[in-house]
Amino acid sequence: MFTIKGSIWIEHDNHAFIGAGRIVLLERIKEHGSITLAAKSMKMSYRQAWELIDSMNRQSDTPLVEAHSGGAGGGGTKITAEGERVIKVYKDLNEKFQKFQEAESKKLKF
Amino acid sequence: MFTIKGSIWIEHDNHAFIGAGRIVLLERIKEHGSITLAAKSMKMSYRQAWELIDSMNRQSDTPLVEAHSGGAGGGGTKITAEGERVIKVYKDLNEKFQKFQEAESKKLKF
Repeated sequence: MFTIKGSIWIEHDNHAFIGAGRIVLLERIKEHGSITLAAKSMKMSYRQAWELIDSMNRQSDTPLVEAHSGGAGGGGTKITAEGERVIKVYKDLNEKFQKFQEAESKKLKF
Repeated sequence: MFTIKGSIWIEHDNHAFIGAGRIVLLERIKEHGSITLAAKSMKMSYRQAWELIDSMNRQSDTPLVEAHSGGAGGGGTKITAEGERVIKVYKDLNEKFQKFQEAESKKLKF
């Protein structure tokens, strides 16, 4: 069976801004509240995760990820409202792209 | 400026069948009439080019590339009618995908 596959990402002035891997990282930070744990869950170094976050934050008017201090757990890292919005924008885009792939796959004849 | 980018390819039973690189290879074979020259123009080894062609030919009911013998030049390699059709199918698909990317890029707000 022939099927169309693909990948999609968002660039900012020709630099990577958001792609599938960065979205997983944002979701893991949301889940774990910690860059260290998010990175570990993706078998990524802390430095690598931090650089991806820094790249996203620098390119966005509003940071997507920020440190929060205090509280019962003594602080950590969280996704901002803008971070949540970016996750949704990418997921909606990717879902549309999946539908595009499925519709076009049905037209294939080999 | 934020823009959506992506890549798209066609798989056959979860194996790579056609993608941007293989399409360039088919076009170069068409242009040069020779696997050796096509491979050289892409800085690819003959073996690598041959394996890609063999992969495409084996997955298609009708070969996309075939040897032709005789004629003034003493034979060579050519793209079949099915090969031409596959190039067109991929290019049309990619063009639609480019339009999808452009339309979705306009909706982005960061």
